Amino acid sequence: MTTSSTTAGELPCGSMEPAHIHRLQCSRQWRGFLAALAEEFVSALAPQELGTLMARIGMRFAAEHPLPASDTVQGLQDAMNHVWSALDWGVAELHQSPAGMDISHRFSPLAAAFGEPHAPWATGFLQGAYQQWFDAAGGAGLRVQIAAAADTLGSARLRLAA
Amino acid sequence: MTTSSTTAGELPCGSMEPAHIHRLQCSRQWRGFLAALAEEFVSALAPQELGTLMARIGMRFAAEHPLPASDTVQGLQDAMNHVWSALDWGVAELHQSPAGMDISHRFSPLAAAFGEPHAPWATGFLQGAYQQWFDAAGGAGLRVQIAAAADTLGSARLRLAA
Amino acid sequence: MTTSSTTAGELPCGSMEPAHIHRLQCSRQWRGFLAALAEEFVSALAPQELGTLMARIGMRFAAEHPLPASDTVQGLQDAMNHVWSALDWGVAELHQSPAGMDISHRFSPLAAAFGEPHAPWATGFLQGAYQQWFDAAGGAGLRVQIAAAADTLGSARLRLAA
Amino acid sequence: MTTSSTTAGELPCGSMEPAHIHRLQCSRQWRGFLAALAEEFVSALAPQELGTLMARIGMRFAAEHPLPASDTVQGLQDAMNHVWSALDWGVAELHQSPAGMDISHRFSPLAAAFGEPHAPWATGFLQGAYQQWFDAAGGAGLRVQIAAAADTLGSARLRLAA
Repeated sequence: MTTSSTTAGELPCGSMEPAHIHRLQCSRQWRGFLAALAEEFVSALAPQELGTLMARIGMRFAAEHPLPASDTVQGLQDAMNHVWSALDWGVAELHQSPAGMDISHRFSPLAAAFGEPHAPWATGFLQGAYQQWFDAAGGAGLRVQIAAAADTLGSARLRLAA
Repeated sequence: MTTSSTTAGELPCGSMEPAHIHRLQCSRQWRGFLAALAEEFVSALAPQELGTLMARIGMRFAAEHPLPASDTVQGLQDAMNHVWSALDWGVAELHQSPAGMDISHRFSPLAAAFGEPHAPWATGFLQGAYQQWFDAAGGAGLRVQIAAAADTLGSARLRLAA
Repeated sequence: MTTSSTTAGELPCGSMEPAHIHRLQCSRQWRGFLAALAEEFVSALAPQELGTLMARIGMRFAAEHPLPASDTVQGLQDAMNHVWSALDWGVAELHQSPAGMDISHRFSPLAAAFGEPHAPWATGFLQGAYQQWFDAAGGAGLRVQIAAAADTLGSARLRLAA
Repeated sequence: MTTSSTTAGELPCGSMEPAHIHRLQCSRQWRGFLAALAEEFVSALAPQELGTLMARIGMRFAAEHPLPASDTVQGLQDAMNHVWSALDWGVAELHQSPAGMDISHRFSPLAAAFGEPHAPWATGFLQGAYQQWFDAAGGAGLRVQIAAAADTLGSARLRLAA
């Protein structure tokens, strides 16, 4: 790919350049702490246990950040983004599908904070947060699953289904 | 206390006012996450275990932030503050005493992040970080102990002794 | 004042200690830039001109952060704090009085950013922001004046009157 | 461009995605203020005057952040990056050439803060900062010029020459 092949509106992203900016996704104050926390966690627990632990933390987080009632998917998405945006935690998009609800969460700080190799289990935090929010919205019996764990940019996909 | 009783150079600090500023000690992005992490931790582990866990995280953090060699206590203190200051993690002061070395760490974000009730075990992070740095500086056999856990302002005292 | 004289709920604030925390009121990224900007401004403009310039910047800021319509003073205050809180710009309180409306804005980052000596003219930013918001809310002909410029903590008082 | 066309090590950057992350280059607390400042500036001053004003601010900034003496270009570059890195202001690279010294400054927060249309004159800040640092390092008579103003990512190129 050459720079000239990018179309209008696209930014040329070289192989090295974004790394610096991606680190800015996680505030400097906690980068070192959270990286050390991640290393300690992986030395003590299996990935599945780590995912479950992060999901429990995510459920507590969402319970402390309850959403106002909403009649529509768009209203629910807006309420979620009101929380995420204020914390520089990225952007959520909800899409209803025959199989349930697709959740696209772009640009979380999880990869920048815990390190890219730990992004898969760290995504459990988003799983737990969305689970709690959907439970509170009345989605009894539906489960949030991870469809694609957070990538380098902290973007993940999840799915709510029976 | 009335405002007029404060002497020159002192700031009038009412009972309510500092709370807002103290919250600024912890970056907004991770306040909610770390508060939820703390709640999950205390539901699963005893305070002593939590202190030990935090100390292990602190040791990993310090190992990832090694200090340059220093011949003097002042040089060591400067090297430590070089790390802390860049991360908005407060200020360290070292004082040699007959019993060992007193470490005063003021204004860590630990209380603002984990919540004041959890500051005692969260102080384990500082204990582990200083332990690792003193070990690396050649203080074999000396142990860092917590003399006074982090207060509302995130200020704690520790001691290095045999 | 000794520490033991502080009553329950009050924090002991020594003469030196708060300075470190107050600096945290202004994000590290812009502290140096804004301090240099302030020095350049005072070398070129008189204090009154600086206040006017800051007021114009404040009006533009408020126009870019419009408030939802509100029927009550409380609703207006909540809408203002929704903006300020999300940016770590402190807390506003509105009080109706026979003479007009008193505005107390506590803990702005203005003193931490521009330096305490420059806080008086920097307060013009708040004056302009509130002027714009009250104009948009229908307060035609009413003027926001500074009653007490921002102090060390960035706290200021303003007044809306005919 | 499809994602599959990106080569190993490159990140897929869609047309919309980077914008969100780029905003993170400027801390949330000052985004609104600095955008309003930029609008006020362009309403009052011509681009060339704005560039000169920013250069004066940059010179004051650099004078307040003096560099330790260095015998080599690499040492000078390291000292500069020590300042920039601590403030999340990006990365500088110096390259000596027959014509003088090329300065590449990548990922400044200038475009994210002042807005991309204002990045050209905002680059004056970097021009002034490097001018002051080279003056202090003994480069009497040499001038820093802007070779390419800050782009969307805040990356600019400057040149020191007679």
